[in-house]
Amino acid sequence: MNYVIEFQPSGKSIEVDEKTTVLRAARKAGLHINASCGGTGVCGKCRILVESGTVQGGISEKLTPEEIADGTRQACTAQITEDIVVRILDDAGLKKGQLGTAVPERHRTGKYVFNLDELRQAGLFIPPVEKFFLELPKPDATDHGSDASRIINAMREQYNERHIQLGLSVLRILRRTIRENDFRLTVTLARPVNSKSRSRLTHVQAGDWSKRNYGLAVDIGTTTVYGQLIEKNSGKILAEGGEYNRQISYGEDVISRMIYAEKGEGLSRMHELVIESINGIIERLLKKQRVNRDEISSITMAGNTAMTHLLLQLEPHNIRRAPYVPVSNFYPPIRATDIGLDLADHAIALLYPAVSSYVGGDIVAGVMGSGMYRTEKTTLFIDIGTNAEIVIGNKDWLASAACSAGPAFEGGGILHGMRAAAGAIEDFSIDPQTLEPMSITIDGKPAKGICGSGLLIMVSELFETGVLDQRGRFDRNLDHPRLREGRSGWEYVVIWAEESGIDQDIVLTEVDIDNFIRAKGAIYAGIQTLLAEVGLEAGDLEQVILAGGFGSYIDLDSAITVGLLPEMDTDKIIYVGNGSLMGCRMSELSNHIRKDVVAAIRRMTGFELSEVPSYRDQYVASLFLPHTDTTLFPETEQRRLSRIRERDKTAA
Amino acid sequence: MNYVIEFQPSGKSIEVDEKTTVLRAARKAGLHINASCGGTGVCGKCRILVESGTVQGGISEKLTPEEIADGTRQACTAQITEDIVVRILDDAGLKKGQLGTAVPERHRTGKYVFNLDELRQAGLFIPPVEKFFLELPKPDATDHGSDASRIINAMREQYNERHIQLGLSVLRILRRTIRENDFRLTVTLARPVNSKSRSRLTHVQAGDWSKRNYGLAVDIGTTTVYGQLIEKNSGKILAEGGEYNRQISYGEDVISRMIYAEKGEGLSRMHELVIESINGIIERLLKKQRVNRDEISSITMAGNTAMTHLLLQLEPHNIRRAPYVPVSNFYPPIRATDIGLDLADHAIALLYPAVSSYVGGDIVAGVMGSGMYRTEKTTLFIDIGTNAEIVIGNKDWLASAACSAGPAFEGGGILHGMRAAAGAIEDFSIDPQTLEPMSITIDGKPAKGICGSGLLIMVSELFETGVLDQRGRFDRNLDHPRLREGRSGWEYVVIWAEESGIDQDIVLTEVDIDNFIRAKGAIYAGIQTLLAEVGLEAGDLEQVILAGGFGSYIDLDSAITVGLLPEMDTDKIIYVGNGSLMGCRMSELSNHIRKDVVAAIRRMTGFELSEVPSYRDQYVASLFLPHTDTTLFPETEQRRLSRIRERDKTAA
Repeated sequence: MNYVIEFQPSGKSIEVDEKTTVLRAARKAGLHINASCGGTGVCGKCRILVESGTVQGGISEKLTPEEIADGTRQACTAQITEDIVVRILDDAGLKKGQLGTAVPERHRTGKYVFNLDELRQAGLFIPPVEKFFLELPKPDATDHGSDASRIINAMREQYNERHIQLGLSVLRILRRTIRENDFRLTVTLARPVNSKSRSRLTHVQAGDWSKRNYGLAVDIGTTTVYGQLIEKNSGKILAEGGEYNRQISYGEDVISRMIYAEKGEGLSRMHELVIESINGIIERLLKKQRVNRDEISSITMAGNTAMTHLLLQLEPHNIRRAPYVPVSNFYPPIRATDIGLDLADHAIALLYPAVSSYVGGDIVAGVMGSGMYRTEKTTLFIDIGTNAEIVIGNKDWLASAACSAGPAFEGGGILHGMRAAAGAIEDFSIDPQTLEPMSITIDGKPAKGICGSGLLIMVSELFETGVLDQRGRFDRNLDHPRLREGRSGWEYVVIWAEESGIDQDIVLTEVDIDNFIRAKGAIYAGIQTLLAEVGLEAGDLEQVILAGGFGSYIDLDSAITVGLLPEMDTDKIIYVGNGSLMGCRMSELSNHIRKDVVAAIRRMTGFELSEVPSYRDQYVASLFLPHTDTTLFPETEQRRLSRIRERDKTAA
Repeated sequence: MNYVIEFQPSGKSIEVDEKTTVLRAARKAGLHINASCGGTGVCGKCRILVESGTVQGGISEKLTPEEIADGTRQACTAQITEDIVVRILDDAGLKKGQLGTAVPERHRTGKYVFNLDELRQAGLFIPPVEKFFLELPKPDATDHGSDASRIINAMREQYNERHIQLGLSVLRILRRTIRENDFRLTVTLARPVNSKSRSRLTHVQAGDWSKRNYGLAVDIGTTTVYGQLIEKNSGKILAEGGEYNRQISYGEDVISRMIYAEKGEGLSRMHELVIESINGIIERLLKKQRVNRDEISSITMAGNTAMTHLLLQLEPHNIRRAPYVPVSNFYPPIRATDIGLDLADHAIALLYPAVSSYVGGDIVAGVMGSGMYRTEKTTLFIDIGTNAEIVIGNKDWLASAACSAGPAFEGGGILHGMRAAAGAIEDFSIDPQTLEPMSITIDGKPAKGICGSGLLIMVSELFETGVLDQRGRFDRNLDHPRLREGRSGWEYVVIWAEESGIDQDIVLTEVDIDNFIRAKGAIYAGIQTLLAEVGLEAGDLEQVILAGGFGSYIDLDSAITVGLLPEMDTDKIIYVGNGSLMGCRMSELSNHIRKDVVAAIRRMTGFELSEVPSYRDQYVASLFLPHTDTTLFPETEQRRLSRIRERDKTAA
């Protein structure tokens, strides 16, 4: 259910989901409410007066009984359960004066979900591994055809499926399976990528089991492994879930795992751990549904090139050494049990191919899953993480590159950085006059630190309000209790110790900001370099697709303000979430995708940024907010200047 | 070395191999010498006088010192080691009179050996699994191609081999193997049957091993398993050998093994036993040569449909039950270790496909190996054993059938029948006047019994000389000590007890002859029925190909005389020996054969004789010597009548 909330005195109203807090609703509406504790109810500053309707919660000992009786509530814990009108009180909003409580609205990207019906209508809904029910003609004196030929003929006649080969394991159970239910049986067919090759019958079952046709899609992330159980006949996701990649105990980054894999039994250990992770997920996905393990006929997986090598137990040694050569970018279909997956013997494992050591199957899966490979629009696809992978192109050509951004976007190298977990500050705005913050934590839990999306919006706000300059330095002239010189230089106190969940001030330091700028600079420089290599400019981009965990929470305006993404109309930006997982699911449902991916990779040019001379220059020029060349960000610059002018005018 | 022996008084001379006995030379020349003990030196009747030159051996206590000094020798043990002239003495030849010692010459078939050079010149010498040496370009800053792509590109550029896929096990050792010998390596390529499918790299080795390219050809007979070790680059057979199929301890015939396979662990036991047989042969073949087990990259096998099922552990239940349906007639390429063969993991096992339950891969292999599938000539291919398989056709069409002949040709159902082993009477002629026999045993060992080829020629001789009539009955009017009424009716004493190796008379009974006639009748009826089904007559046959162990020793005139084969010019008949093994070897050397076999089977019509109404009539008409309709055997009838007339004239 959605409800409308109207804010006074601005008169702004916005529609929100049921149980959204008033604080989040204000943030969404572009209204500032002081929330110095992260929205956990501790500071008691985010007061609102409910003028019409009622809210749920929003009451604590910070409010007097009279205030409560009057309708005063804390915006951070007050949930919207009907249409209401609220007034932002002075304490909570701007101190005094004529200014409203307006801060810039923030743009989350529109989420792209691929269209199953479109796939079906285009005749592409043909899973690579599929079940068919057959009623076979029985042998008699005029028909001595073998059991196998009976199936082959019936598949041709009933389903127009040709060139079918039966493997040894199927042949071994074929006679009794055919006869168990009077020549009625279900066969599982695995299609080839190349339509001229043979299809293989991987399984036979007596009777009709054609409705029980399941597959798995699995994204093998360096940090997290994520899986979906898919009902292949409908394309529906029956269950999904993830867990940390168990390799993580041997190092959070890919490089340290590759190093470990080079030693003794290291490779087989790495292989076992990721397989254990996948098996753990399979176990839980199956438990959630009444699906038997042996009803899974296929699993499609994607990961970066190093993760794929570790998964298959291929030696990753040369991936990390110049000139960065993987064992293979293409992987044959394999029996799932051959790599230790806890599935039936007949289950087939399909792996997304890679472009290079640094543009892996996860990115390829994203390019496929997001439909980039068949769009007319000149598109930038970007997956932001420790390594950012960038693909530019459309249905006719593709260029890819990867750049090392470092771990800042995952909270690494940031004093109070943390992963996007409960208690992480994920949203933020600042009152340009008072410099008081509006912080919002994940799940409204006491603040523990700052996650990547919080960091991005924080730097953006501080920069736009002039608290930070172009070089990422705090304005030393501002006299404010939250700005101070700490142990590692100047810092801004985001949450005071007594309002935090960790008994110490949560701060953002200039060192943090330097790390952040290097990360965003590497990515921006990568985009610019790749654009230049293919003879384009940012203005030529007709679409941007964000993928990956970070992309889902990214604030687009902030991303442009700090110079992570090129300045552009934010409507052109879409988010696909876990593009790798989406690509795997699409592959499970459409063998055409598997065919197209080979063609897509063939027309994808891989660039090694380290070998493109201009990359270094682009990088250095990007180590500013938003960039050394502000003409690349004209609107950003104008907005910033106008917000600072506003601030100075009010102060004056 | 060959030598010329001239026989007196006939003046006939013949060229023979060194160490041939004078007895065998006489037989070959169509001259009768009494040899009532089978040619073992016991009876002492086969006396000859060496008139020019000397022989080796031929001396025993049966000869007086004077006789020895004069040059008298026993023909059965006298070996020819130089050009000689010998006189057949009265005792040994005809008793008296003007007649020479002539009996009909016997025709062994010409042996067909397939022509490797022809294969090479036709560009067909392309093994299905082959090795290639590659020197790969090394990766550098401008070439980040994966290890796998390096191989794929090099195979295309250096050998024009395309569409190559690398399996997981190869990918797992690829990185280190490529670098072990500085990017110089040998790859093993397994080609598909269908040229549009992918080839697979099955193995990689550091350095150049392309000269060490070996394969195995194995015929899986019900009785004997026979194998060849093949040097694939040259096509040469390096070693060959066989052993009894170890399943034989569970029954000599296929049916009893199939019955056993239906019980409990019976199938897996049958599977294990034949695999043990093959492994035993592999062991010995490798020992004979300096070839390592892991240098065998492929093994091609053929057997009848039941044997193939047992080999692959496919349930044979419906092969022996109407309507006789096998699990499959085609078998996918499999990993040799998957069926328990003691070869390297990378070795591929290829199985010859079958036509039906009763026309198996061994016959198909024979049709391929003998070149029948590509001849212009209307050809009859026949493999004579307990089951006789018959194929008629040419390069444009093929028709096949199988008929159950019973075990007579293998010595079964014959009172003194035995397999073709040392001491078995394998050759025979009879003096039409004296009815005294000239028996020759295998290896000149004391006579133990009669093998199939001996039985055939014995029946033929007895019939042609009028001792047997058309119905297979002995002439009751002949008064001769070797013809008598025994326990199971009338019989002819082939070897007297004192001259035999078993202390009892070796006899041929009318019951034996009945069994023989039923066996030959079933085959002849099969040929006639199949000919009629395709609208041909025996006279239309331009070529006959005999295959199988029996075929190698068959006397063509005898086969026609008794009505086993249709009357025809014996020059049209060739023998291919173990056609199944030959087909396997050809498949090991030429992937084109593997492709052609699919097409050949597609154009091969299988007939079930039991369902062709005329077969029964044909069979009944064939239960005579040679046939109820003697106009089908005009020359045979004429020869018989003339021999009988000769006999009667002499007797008169």
